[in-house]
Amino acid sequence: MYNFNFCCPTRVIFGKGTIAELPKYIDRNKKVLMIYGGGSIKRNGVYDQVKRALEGYNLLEFGGIEPNPKYETCMRAVEMIKREGVEFLLAVGGGSTLDGTKFIAAASKYEGGDPYEDIMVKGIEVRDALPLADVITLPATGSEMNSGAVVSRLATEEKLAFHSDYVFPQFSIIDPEVTYSLPIRQTINGIVDTFVHVMEQYCTFDVNSPLQDSWALGILKTLIEEAPKVLANPTDYDTRANIFWCATCGLNNWISQGVPQDWATHLIGHELTAFYGIDHGQSLAIIEPRLLKNQKVSKAKKLAKLAREVFGIEESVDLKAADKAIEAVEAFYNSIGMKTKLSDYEIDANEAAEKIRERFKQRDVHLGEKGAIDADVAYDIVKAC
Amino acid sequence: MYNFNFCCPTRVIFGKGTIAELPKYIDRNKKVLMIYGGGSIKRNGVYDQVKRALEGYNLLEFGGIEPNPKYETCMRAVEMIKREGVEFLLAVGGGSTLDGTKFIAAASKYEGGDPYEDIMVKGIEVRDALPLADVITLPATGSEMNSGAVVSRLATEEKLAFHSDYVFPQFSIIDPEVTYSLPIRQTINGIVDTFVHVMEQYCTFDVNSPLQDSWALGILKTLIEEAPKVLANPTDYDTRANIFWCATCGLNNWISQGVPQDWATHLIGHELTAFYGIDHGQSLAIIEPRLLKNQKVSKAKKLAKLAREVFGIEESVDLKAADKAIEAVEAFYNSIGMKTKLSDYEIDANEAAEKIRERFKQRDVHLGEKGAIDADVAYDIVKAC
Repeated sequence: MYNFNFCCPTRVIFGKGTIAELPKYIDRNKKVLMIYGGGSIKRNGVYDQVKRALEGYNLLEFGGIEPNPKYETCMRAVEMIKREGVEFLLAVGGGSTLDGTKFIAAASKYEGGDPYEDIMVKGIEVRDALPLADVITLPATGSEMNSGAVVSRLATEEKLAFHSDYVFPQFSIIDPEVTYSLPIRQTINGIVDTFVHVMEQYCTFDVNSPLQDSWALGILKTLIEEAPKVLANPTDYDTRANIFWCATCGLNNWISQGVPQDWATHLIGHELTAFYGIDHGQSLAIIEPRLLKNQKVSKAKKLAKLAREVFGIEESVDLKAADKAIEAVEAFYNSIGMKTKLSDYEIDANEAAEKIRERFKQRDVHLGEKGAIDADVAYDIVKAC
Repeated sequence: MYNFNFCCPTRVIFGKGTIAELPKYIDRNKKVLMIYGGGSIKRNGVYDQVKRALEGYNLLEFGGIEPNPKYETCMRAVEMIKREGVEFLLAVGGGSTLDGTKFIAAASKYEGGDPYEDIMVKGIEVRDALPLADVITLPATGSEMNSGAVVSRLATEEKLAFHSDYVFPQFSIIDPEVTYSLPIRQTINGIVDTFVHVMEQYCTFDVNSPLQDSWALGILKTLIEEAPKVLANPTDYDTRANIFWCATCGLNNWISQGVPQDWATHLIGHELTAFYGIDHGQSLAIIEPRLLKNQKVSKAKKLAKLAREVFGIEESVDLKAADKAIEAVEAFYNSIGMKTKLSDYEIDANEAAEKIRERFKQRDVHLGEKGAIDADVAYDIVKAC
């Protein structure tokens, strides 16, 4: 096991009816900005629940954060915050709204040049941010219990991430009931996103970390068991609760302490989203099987363990078990209605591979737990998608 | 799954050589009191490592916290703190030293009457405490990442617990190398303590929480795999690291969110320690198998899952699988040299059962996840030990 340093100060308030508890956690004397997305929270009743809970607060609103939140939109919120003297940010929505809010929190206090260029592209360390919290409505990104955010810049077709302890949510309210009305596509996207988050942290090389492995595999197993249940009965509370807790634990870093991490599927997938606008979950489901195939030898031990412990595959040769694990993962995605080929989305694999190779060459990237995926390897992976 | 509310603000700094990082986390302008136990840290080099790391600090020392820390000793530390104007507490040692330090931190700021009577017996809420942190040297209690503490009062033969968000360690340094020199008895006690912590959180009744279950079982499985390795090779780093991380995760509440909890084995075991002075781990190993037998019907589903998923027992009838799980747990304890009968410790079961019944009658206790264990049931359990 590697050395590690871990702290997650976020309070999680999980369960039925928890939105009503908001006033326990936000100072009544602060000027609060509620940040949300395209308005789904108005249709599913969450907006009304939040407004009711925060009656009497000095509450402003900023709507319109997009899926794959845009830098350009975030900066309009920053202007409003500075103009109005906002002191506390409450994201209400999915991971995109929360990620956008994290960037807004940091950008509002950033005193250098262009915040996207500095924080996202150059990686300049964030040294302050407005306090923030969230009512998270989509089980997917795990952003509700971590300090990372992904934001896109329209102008340059870029989708990049930043991390800072300053943008941990002070608290996250998770009421699984609010996911009853999720469109099926978002439910599936969330399950695949969670699955791939776990794989990025688990499926690398062995460093003798049996506890972390068992926890990662426990999330995968639970997702595989719960996914068909939620499709059959979208308003079953326990199923929705189990899936949401998997999503949160899939990226709160409890499973990744002391182990190597991959994240190449995400970083290639981000490019697909940046170039073609496909959903984040879809981009992962397309890339991951081909990436695992490409890196099979290096990941054989973990893939074989996945085959045996999660999929119950009895195959004693690691490389053969690895093949079967990759097939089983793709079959799982397909079984819940997630398409896994670029052609399913009318994207030309050759063109996508070329574009991504070019961009990765410019950035001189070396992705994956061993840095083995450079622009040319990424080209091979995407071409095979 | 039940609703839950979770926050653990403790930073964990885990791995080789991490004691040297102490100055990163303690303000150089604070007056620090280093609290330790019977001096084992002087023999194993930890004391020297801490002193070296904190060179230049205004550092006082208080040694002599006992295993099963005593209220009377803790209050001598409180006197010293008040006299010297100490501002930060650093516990260096095992869970007893840390638990004592948590009580000292709360008692130093307590302005009511007798702190033990008020906080431990009457359960009056703690509203302030000195900031504290630890260098934890024993994988066992999990105290390094939670807000609970158990302290005994000699005068009344009592061993009681309290919880408060104010006594979360600010940080915990865990260097598994410092456990190489642990006496075998403490290594075994720690493994059993961790095992029982997990069982207290897992082995109740089913509330449809597959993720929590899989994580709990993952800790148990890891302990069963690592225990013989550490006995065979006490200086294998990975084995020591895996066991320590199991111990921390066994009681940092990551596995217990949204599920019922038991704790009856601990509460009965505490009485054995209070009356007879046997080790905490020993008390648990004695009580648990008999308690599980007694509560078998109510716990059958979880015991059967334990049998199948951890011990690989193929038995389709839950009650029969439950019996086999209980036998397998006791066999595991015995296999690593932990004795599990009162007679092994020259304690008369009848006398112990009588004493505990009398005390539980006075307190009118109803223990366990269903409150089903009253004084008479506890009597039956202890008598069978």
